[in-house]
Amino acid sequence: MAKDKKKIAVIGAGSWGTALALVLADNGHQVNLWMRSKEQQAEINDRRTNHKYLPGITLPDNITGFHSLQKALEGADTSIIAVPTKAIRETMRNIIKIIGTPMTFVHVSKGIEPDSLKRISEMIEEEVPQELLKAVVVLSGPSHAEEVSLRHPTTVTVSSKDMAAAEKVQDLFMNQHFRVYTNPDLLGVEIGGALKNIIALAAGISDGLGYGDNAKAALITRGLAEISRLGTKMGANPLTFSGLAGIGDLIVTCTSVHSRNWKAGNMLGKGKNLDEVLESMGMVVEGVRTTKAAHQLAEKYETNMPITEALYNVLFNGVNPKEAVDQLMQRLKKNEMEDLVDILSEQMEQK
Amino acid sequence: MAKDKKKIAVIGAGSWGTALALVLADNGHQVNLWMRSKEQQAEINDRRTNHKYLPGITLPDNITGFHSLQKALEGADTSIIAVPTKAIRETMRNIIKIIGTPMTFVHVSKGIEPDSLKRISEMIEEEVPQELLKAVVVLSGPSHAEEVSLRHPTTVTVSSKDMAAAEKVQDLFMNQHFRVYTNPDLLGVEIGGALKNIIALAAGISDGLGYGDNAKAALITRGLAEISRLGTKMGANPLTFSGLAGIGDLIVTCTSVHSRNWKAGNMLGKGKNLDEVLESMGMVVEGVRTTKAAHQLAEKYETNMPITEALYNVLFNGVNPKEAVDQLMQRLKKNEMEDLVDILSEQMEQK
Repeated sequence: MAKDKKKIAVIGAGSWGTALALVLADNGHQVNLWMRSKEQQAEINDRRTNHKYLPGITLPDNITGFHSLQKALEGADTSIIAVPTKAIRETMRNIIKIIGTPMTFVHVSKGIEPDSLKRISEMIEEEVPQELLKAVVVLSGPSHAEEVSLRHPTTVTVSSKDMAAAEKVQDLFMNQHFRVYTNPDLLGVEIGGALKNIIALAAGISDGLGYGDNAKAALITRGLAEISRLGTKMGANPLTFSGLAGIGDLIVTCTSVHSRNWKAGNMLGKGKNLDEVLESMGMVVEGVRTTKAAHQLAEKYETNMPITEALYNVLFNGVNPKEAVDQLMQRLKKNEMEDLVDILSEQMEQK
Repeated sequence: MAKDKKKIAVIGAGSWGTALALVLADNGHQVNLWMRSKEQQAEINDRRTNHKYLPGITLPDNITGFHSLQKALEGADTSIIAVPTKAIRETMRNIIKIIGTPMTFVHVSKGIEPDSLKRISEMIEEEVPQELLKAVVVLSGPSHAEEVSLRHPTTVTVSSKDMAAAEKVQDLFMNQHFRVYTNPDLLGVEIGGALKNIIALAAGISDGLGYGDNAKAALITRGLAEISRLGTKMGANPLTFSGLAGIGDLIVTCTSVHSRNWKAGNMLGKGKNLDEVLESMGMVVEGVRTTKAAHQLAEKYETNMPITEALYNVLFNGVNPKEAVDQLMQRLKKNEMEDLVDILSEQMEQK
């Protein structure tokens, strides 16, 4: 399918890394899929499965598993970085010890670092010396790994400071099932992807409390408003939040049974505490750390983020989830437009 | 609960009319609930149920069923008009034959009249002589009747040319579970409510084809963009589409198992034809007529509405649903922002 067959390293063989490796393999590329575990590597190379993360899927022969990072990176000039946000810096430090020539890094995780308040592209830029950095590209959008691996129609957005690099990444991934669009608003794409996990936690809590689709739709609507409000203050293009990496990703994460953040919220709504939830998930729940970071961002940018604040209080201050959601449902101004107009005028001020 | 107990007529005892009657009754009002069928009236008054439309719900004593329109309207100065869009004009003609003093009409249906391209508030204004018309108010938002009847948290928007009348309606309905907000953009609220049914049909088709949440999220995202594009050209405030009557209602209708339009689309996606679908539904599927009206509106306002056009071709020109959805998934411009910027610049032109 692709004219230009390349060797591409995918760093991280969780659900998303493996699903993206499949897309690249479908396009005829040679994929080196790196993971820490020798057992997982043996499973991938011998049985052609990745049972824990993508049950039921058979991996084609042009995906090769590696647990040696050095071997995985050999001959590749593009790496897909598919590790949790909190592992980004360490992963980049390990990579730069190995590579001798500049590389394009495509990050596909969704989070913000607490305290530093750095986005993932900023963390990568900080860790990789300029002489080893060709470009940093983000890939984001409404895309559950399970569905991508089944070749169900999926649309995502890529963005970068270097749009020529983003277009090359678009070409690597684009196929009949996996549609890739570009958007030059790197900050907006990263913020939209990270913050939607907070709203997914809140939507999960609402569902866990036994509330219905009406309540969840209200939370998603107000959630988009507060993401848009913060993102615009930070310098994003407000239109990004109306696109795939904004409302698109928000909807899929809040309404799908596949979403980890929704699942974690759901357990919280049913009365489990945070430690129990994180223990039983067994995978990373990015929204928890992102809530801490967004709480700090709201302070820094003096932005009103009621859902983020409510969730922060549930996660870190022992506030009862039912009280938090009930208060959220009752706190809108009587005139809905007053809230929306606030957002618009904030957006205008930034222009 | 409410200080001012009133007598209110609810015209139409389908799911939504009955659920709204329950909200008003919870607030202490005396509700006269009108329906055509004597059997349904007997069931409501004798057994306190409305089994076909809201199974499992018990109606309180301050809801009284009527099949005489005259008796239902007696002593009421506010009517909730809860009949399908195509029954609006006839219903209003029957009402004005009876009432002798001006009345406030709250319409809660979602549609546009094909050919005339009138919104429901415009149809009501055309049918009711000025001396009998106090005000027309619309009530819209993410609100499945079943959930409202279970007192699950729900938020809706009311709008009117006469915002004092809208605020009175807000007071009639507002309670702990049912939160009512005002928005002065009558046109936007009515357009958002009507057009979301088209996207729900498309989302249902996608689900019926076996596509997943990724595809559906893309359709909803692009659907909001085209609703917003048309609505703004017609004179709506673009922010309305970011609110409860816009994205909120769109999400709930596209993702909930309760949605009739989604169900109808789902059957189309599974290979049934339109006649079979409409026959098996047994309730009105507003989105079908709305698709015809929106197709005409897109022509009139020279607006690009790819999802509406695709659905129009499926419903009325025999196009295969799978082909239509596959084409939709592939037709975005390569740069997502080009589409979004088009919308923004169209919005700017209208200002």
